[in-house]
This record gives sequence, C-alpha cells and structure tokens, in this order.
Amino acid sequence: MKKVVVHSPGTVANLVCGFDILGLALSEPYDIMEVTLIDEPKVTIQNLDTFNLPVEPEKNVAGVVLISVMEKLNNQFGFDVRIEKHIKPGSGIGSSAASAAGAAVAANQLLGNIFSKAEMVQFAMNGEKLASGVKHADNIAPCIYGGISLIRSIHPLDIISIPAPELFVTVVHPQIEVRTSDARQILKQQVPLKDAIRQWGNIAGLVIGFLKNDFDLIGRSLEDVIIEPVRSILIPGFDELKSSCKEAGALGGGISGSGPSVFMLSKTYETALAVAAVMNNIYYRLGIDKNTYVTNINPLGVSIQSK
Amino acid sequence: MKKVVVHSPGTVANLVCGFDILGLALSEPYDIMEVTLIDEPKVTIQNLDTFNLPVEPEKNVAGVVLISVMEKLNNQFGFDVRIEKHIKPGSGIGSSAASAAGAAVAANQLLGNIFSKAEMVQFAMNGEKLASGVKHADNIAPCIYGGISLIRSIHPLDIISIPAPELFVTVVHPQIEVRTSDARQILKQQVPLKDAIRQWGNIAGLVIGFLKNDFDLIGRSLEDVIIEPVRSILIPGFDELKSSCKEAGALGGGISGSGPSVFMLSKTYETALAVAAVMNNIYYRLGIDKNTYVTNINPLGVSIQSK
Repeated sequence: MKKVVVHSPGTVANLVCGFDILGLALSEPYDIMEVTLIDEPKVTIQNLDTFNLPVEPEKNVAGVVLISVMEKLNNQFGFDVRIEKHIKPGSGIGSSAASAAGAAVAANQLLGNIFSKAEMVQFAMNGEKLASGVKHADNIAPCIYGGISLIRSIHPLDIISIPAPELFVTVVHPQIEVRTSDARQILKQQVPLKDAIRQWGNIAGLVIGFLKNDFDLIGRSLEDVIIEPVRSILIPGFDELKSSCKEAGALGGGISGSGPSVFMLSKTYETALAVAAVMNNIYYRLGIDKNTYVTNINPLGVSIQSK
Repeated sequence: MKKVVVHSPGTVANLVCGFDILGLALSEPYDIMEVTLIDEPKVTIQNLDTFNLPVEPEKNVAGVVLISVMEKLNNQFGFDVRIEKHIKPGSGIGSSAASAAGAAVAANQLLGNIFSKAEMVQFAMNGEKLASGVKHADNIAPCIYGGISLIRSIHPLDIISIPAPELFVTVVHPQIEVRTSDARQILKQQVPLKDAIRQWGNIAGLVIGFLKNDFDLIGRSLEDVIIEPVRSILIPGFDELKSSCKEAGALGGGISGSGPSVFMLSKTYETALAVAAVMNNIYYRLGIDKNTYVTNINPLGVSIQSK
C-alpha cells in the first residue's frame, strides 16, 4: 500500500495591512501526517496527539478534504490518516489549514501528482469551510505554495505567489481563547475612505518590499489602521508587546490570523530571539501562559518526507 | 545667463485601484519650459500658448514652485520662465503637475543639482496646492521620477519608484469639464470593508504585475470597485468606452486623475491604436469633441533638453 508522510506548517494570515489577502508560511511549528492510500472508498482517522479532534471523517478537517478528493475521482479508493498535530487548534497560526493543506498535498502525492497547487487549494478550502464556516484561502495558499501568498480574489480564486524574503519570524501564542467568529463580528463593516487609502498604500509598499527584499520598506509598510485597532483589544498586552518588540529591533508585525497569536518579523535570527525574550517577559508579567516560536519564512510549504 | 529647456510630461494619477497612491508618467503630451537663472530675486513668467494662465508668479503654478525654491535659498537669485503648455488645464492628465514638476527640475538643474528627487517633489507640491488646494503627489512624483510611482504615505512623504513596464497608453480627453472639487465631493467618505479588501487585493496584484511584467495579472488587477463606480457617472459613455476598449484588446484602464480623460493600457502599439479608434468612434457618435493620445509609459519623467 502506498504511504506518504508530510510536514504541514503553521501559517500567518491577515498579514498586518493585508487583511484577508496576504499570508505567509512558517518553518515551525508543523503537523506530521501519515497518509496511506487504501482500496476501500472510506477515510479512517487516528489522532496521535492530545487535542481530541473528531475522528469521524465528515467532522474532521483532513477528513472532509480527503472525501472531496475521493468524490472528485468517483470513490475508487480511500485513505487511512494518522495525524500528530503540533499546531494547537485555536492558536491563530493556521492549525486547521495545516490539516487541510497537508491532506490535500498527501492525497495528490499518493495519486501521482495529478492536481495543480491551485486545485489542491480548492480541495483544502473544504476543510477551512468545516473549521470556520468560510472558504478562505489565506492560510491554505501559503501552506501549499510556501513563502508569501497573495489571494487577489476568492471568486474566482486568484493566488499570486511571492518568493519568501529571508526574514525571521517570532510568534507568541498566549494561552487565551479568541474565537474567530468573535474576532470577525467586532469588525466594522464600513471603513473611512481615508483609512482605506492609507491601508492600500501600505499594502502596495509591503509587496514591493517583499519582492525587492527592501526590509526598511517592509518595516514602514507593516501598519494596519483598520483591523488591528479593533481586534487588538481582544489580546492582553498587545500595544506594549508591539512597541517593545520594535524597540528590540523587529521590523514590525501584528495579530496572526484572528489571534490570539502575535507575530513579528526580524532581519536576523539574533533579533528574532531578542523579540521572543521581550514577548516572554510581557506574558510572564501578565501571568498568562504562552508558547513562543522563533523560526523563519518557509519557502516550500507542505513538504513530503517519505513515500 | 544660465538657461535650461525641459520637457515636462503629462501623468495619470489615481491609477484605477490605486486611488491617491499610484501614478504613471506619459511620454506625450508634454509641456516645454525654458527657464533662465537671473540675478534679481524675482520670477517673471511668459506664456507661449493660448490657455491664458496667470502670469503673476504667486498665482502661477510654476511661479509658486520657483518662489519656494528662492525662499529656501534666501532669495539670492530669480528666474525668467517661458512656458509652452501642450497639456490642457483641466484635462485630468496632470497639467498643473507638469508645470510644477518642470519648474522644480529646471531650477534644480540651473542651481547645480543640489536637490534630491524627493526634495523636488516637495517644492513642486506647492504648485499642486495652488492648483487644487491639496498638496498631493500622485501626479508630481511620476512626473519627476518617471515610470510608475507609489505614494505610500504623504505625511511623511514616502515615494517608491516602480520601473516602467513596457506598456502603451491610450488617453482620450473628451472636451467636457469635470471639476476636481466636484469629483472629490461626490465620493463617499465611508466604504464597505468587503470592497476595501477587494481593492487592496487588486492593488497588491497590480504592483506585483508591474514589477514582474506580468501583463495578465496587470489586466486582472485593473479593477476599481470603490471610486470608479461613483465618478464614472460624470464621464459620458464611460461604461461603453471601457468595455469596448477591452474588447479591442486593452488590458484595462479607467479614469485618469479625477477625469474627464480616460486611459487604457495595452501590450502593443497596434492595440493602443485600435483602442484610440474605439475611443474616437464613441465620442464622435456622442457628439463630444476630444483629443486622443497614443503613447507609452515614460521611463524618465521630466527631461532636460539643453543647457
């Protein structure tokens, strides 16, 4: 029986000014998924972690992705899946996207690379729909393409891949709960035109900075005048965290996805470590447990470990 | 006496989804300005065209720019200026910006290249302030830098120059009046968040397209869901014009500045000519006089012809 092991990484969506359109892949943390092609048209799921996610395939993010692949190809086969998640559900760094994208990439590998990356994103979006009710792609696209992804449009799906600049990422996950649905509900549905203009100036600056490896421009453009002022109230210590991390040398950063994780970009590994120390100190003082990651932008996305 | 002749080109601001932040320089039309450095601390202006613009320096766009240069350098000198404008005032292709930018570049040349481009933009913005009441830079920056300019921020001024892709531009100027102040007043001051998100996806796609010479991406991204639906009602025949130009092969386009000119980008000179024929036919049928230009993106901006 054909079997594949993939590493499916965490991702940062809603990249500061790039709400709903820009995401990046992290090198760590990542989930490990072992997927086996079987003759029977069914999906079985086994969790190797302690998150107690559902194992019924139609209630499991990886499960619904694999079912959609089976249905596309007329149910001539099935999958056994063993998942060892390291990306905590609800952390805001693309836990469900990692399961969904990992399942799509593993299935494609087992079936002989018959799908394009854009098609794998489409399959994986069924998993995001299950997890959050919305078929969004700003975690899934960077998880599959690697680097930074622009989702120019969802209908029709238009993904533009931006090569990964050599930047280090510090992520802190304070152990508090922010529900995606709450984070979405507090957003204002109308925004001032002058703020929208400032935001699209920053978006343009940010993508130019990424393409030209202009780190100063990236830093100047990492400003969100629309979403962050509203959502950051859900994250304890956010304003102090951001200003202290920038004092420690970070180019800038913001809320990862819909939170509660916060990420910062830095030019060097040493700065990224110093930023992690700042983050740890602040949450220690606030008495909030946290996980901290010091990593870089993952240029490859989901990687195939063995066949 | 030192003398310089400059050609100062028209520009397209508010580049479709890039309202207030993106502009490009045209190779044609351009104004011709002859500027002479004189010993006396005064500015004299002579018009060599039929537009009857004011010749009092403090009421003339080029005049106020030159006065601001003189004040900066303690009035040790002055300028005689002869202006032959070819960019019709009120056309929406940067007529006042051409006078302002041409004056700043000519003065800098006469004074021994003592100013940076960003400083020349600052001087020239005084001319835009006189013309429109607002110190905006999205015509002036491409006029001085050439190619395409991103104005990421006005306060503080942050201009990012994007090299000119090899694209042809067709511009039609229907001879109707659209006041910049009217065009600004009809804009809604609040925009739906979902439209703002779509707009910043397009902005990101457009600048990536420009940087990568990805013409299909440029075409897909030339969409404005916020400003154009409101302002296009001021321009007779706009919807038909746009769809017919795209049928004729244009990548896309929109209102130039605050109108009434409309521009279209094309991959080849032949397509740009066909687009001009479409534009001419429509305004002929509507009984509206027009000027049409078939040109390309000007990579250099204001050019110095002789010293």
